[in-house]
Amino acid sequence: MEFPSKLIEDAVNEVSKLPGIGKKTALRLVLHLIKEHESKTFLLTESLKNLRGKIKSCITCHNISDEDECNICRSHRRDKSLLCVVEDTRDVMAIENTAQFIGRYHVLGGVISPMNGIGPSNLKIDSLVSRIASPTNEVKEIILAISPTMEGDTTAFYINKKLAAYSVKITSIARGIPVGGDLEYADEITLGRSIMSRTLFT
Amino acid sequence: MEFPSKLIEDAVNEVSKLPGIGKKTALRLVLHLIKEHESKTFLLTESLKNLRGKIKSCITCHNISDEDECNICRSHRRDKSLLCVVEDTRDVMAIENTAQFIGRYHVLGGVISPMNGIGPSNLKIDSLVSRIASPTNEVKEIILAISPTMEGDTTAFYINKKLAAYSVKITSIARGIPVGGDLEYADEITLGRSIMSRTLFT
Repeated sequence: MEFPSKLIEDAVNEVSKLPGIGKKTALRLVLHLIKEHESKTFLLTESLKNLRGKIKSCITCHNISDEDECNICRSHRRDKSLLCVVEDTRDVMAIENTAQFIGRYHVLGGVISPMNGIGPSNLKIDSLVSRIASPTNEVKEIILAISPTMEGDTTAFYINKKLAAYSVKITSIARGIPVGGDLEYADEITLGRSIMSRTLFT
Repeated sequence: MEFPSKLIEDAVNEVSKLPGIGKKTALRLVLHLIKEHESKTFLLTESLKNLRGKIKSCITCHNISDEDECNICRSHRRDKSLLCVVEDTRDVMAIENTAQFIGRYHVLGGVISPMNGIGPSNLKIDSLVSRIASPTNEVKEIILAISPTMEGDTTAFYINKKLAAYSVKITSIARGIPVGGDLEYADEITLGRSIMSRTLFT
């Protein structure tokens, strides 16, 4: 692509480094910013700089936070005996949106993936173990809410093994046919598992 | 959507103001920036600020430019007797990519659209007329390369009328079935026009 201006070329190159944004989309966004008032670009760049400069990670659950400890960990209304282990912040947001979970979280920061060079030491698994091993520990049940992929299952298995020595119940979120899903189009493994782990009809 | 942090919320709100980017995509981009090194966010924000602060519009053709006059207008290798009238910078880039046009451009900055409050005075039509009316004018042919929409046709008609008094040939880019297009799926107007304006088979 030939650009009429070096400034546009630089901006397009930077914007197209974002995931899922190619050169054409980047150009559209950049030309949009040029058309709009200068203050809009300023607001955008300021909010991103602010974000990157000030954002913190909660010292307890490692979720993204404005403070040293996040709102959920500080809240007195959350059930301290329940701990939900998730991969990243997006999962916390997804579970919070269901309004079905009243416990607290532990954010691993990913899953074990030797192909991408991510081992257990790159994740917050040791920190999870020390939370449970701590003398002030109040957690009675750990819910593993990790994606049912090869890497996710490996991670869940590893965590399960690491926590075997402690008297804490370890559960996993239910796998099965999604609500509104059609049996006909479900894959065999999901359908098989959903029959194996059938529940009482109430 | 509930956010774990005010900083993220602000950034997501700003990013989702960009065209074609919703809250979910904005969140994905923002979380990506948090995961990456701080310098990447800095490069992105700097390139956007630089762009918005320094970008200029060519004094002759009104195309986006780094200098007061753009590369194309300054070039001695372009044919000064040919002038292509387009809506915006993207059209200039698209035509330049074909490498079929050796003349110069005139960028209107949009099309006449009363629905959106854009009249002839909001476009660079007067500037086009003064280019042609100028005693040093070398333009012999004006090619209207404007989208064949209702607004585009209105704009082309208006320009044609405004330039009627000058001895300059006005042409329009060919309308017809796109190369590789299937007759069966072409709309009737395009197909009808393409038969009316048939060309000699060579």
